[in-house]
Amino acid sequence: MTDKAFQDRYEDDVAHCYGCGRLNDRGHHIKTIWEGEESVTRFTPEPYHTAIPGTVYGGMIASLIDCHCTGTAAAAAARAAGTDAGDGPLPRFVTASLHVVYKRPTPLGPAIEIRGRVKEIKGRKIVIESRLMVEGETCATGEVVAVAMPEGFSPGHSHPSKP
Amino acid sequence: MTDKAFQDRYEDDVAHCYGCGRLNDRGHHIKTIWEGEESVTRFTPEPYHTAIPGTVYGGMIASLIDCHCTGTAAAAAARAAGTDAGDGPLPRFVTASLHVVYKRPTPLGPAIEIRGRVKEIKGRKIVIESRLMVEGETCATGEVVAVAMPEGFSPGHSHPSKP
Repeated sequence: MTDKAFQDRYEDDVAHCYGCGRLNDRGHHIKTIWEGEESVTRFTPEPYHTAIPGTVYGGMIASLIDCHCTGTAAAAAARAAGTDAGDGPLPRFVTASLHVVYKRPTPLGPAIEIRGRVKEIKGRKIVIESRLMVEGETCATGEVVAVAMPEGFSPGHSHPSKP
Repeated sequence: MTDKAFQDRYEDDVAHCYGCGRLNDRGHHIKTIWEGEESVTRFTPEPYHTAIPGTVYGGMIASLIDCHCTGTAAAAAARAAGTDAGDGPLPRFVTASLHVVYKRPTPLGPAIEIRGRVKEIKGRKIVIESRLMVEGETCATGEVVAVAMPEGFSPGHSHPSKP
């Protein structure tokens, strides 16, 4: 076991995500760890991450759920393969679909906690379900279908000489 | 008809959204207009809005679809009520659910175009479907269930004296 966040174990060439990449100076640096069978992300939005005043912006909620779930998928894949013994590199998963249900306004100010569980592992596809809470109250739920990043996923990744 | 973006017609007290509020200095200022029966948003991400290098961050895609669709719902509600004659205020809709399907990597660099259509109007609930394109190729699709903002939606909104 390790305290190192899943996202901090991505290889350097895929660690630039605006949501969670440690190498993105302008990003949110979303970080996820295991707590038993659940994965947990904690994040405190900035005052300008607002929607209707007093509430957290829905796009930020979607972003948190996205990076939380793809990170959880990466760690779950390594755990299922028996390769998650330490704090070594994790595989990179990308989002095939994202579904967020906004159950009530998410109050802006306190820390947000997101807890996730593996719903299904099927080959390269992993489904993660999660709930987003503030002070113990569930404000949104999310489900992400994550897929192990294919070879040549993007021009930028597979052909770094291209713009 | 007017060229004024839907989001620029929200009342001042609900125009602070990080995605689309004209009064949010740090936000994305997502703007949507009608083009015939379709609503259109055009947005060029910054280089740091990346996921895997060369592609647009999925959370940004979700944010664009969210504000595009809630804006479209607001304008569609006014049009359905026959109150959209000019560039006056629009009602504010909030997101009940957001579903994004990522069909292929969205290349980072060119302008993104999102086109939306009203799928269903049922009382205070409006369903908007949309597709996100770069250079004519569909990279993601989205569906948002938007709901007319209830009275007292948030502590911050209904009780502005609270923090």
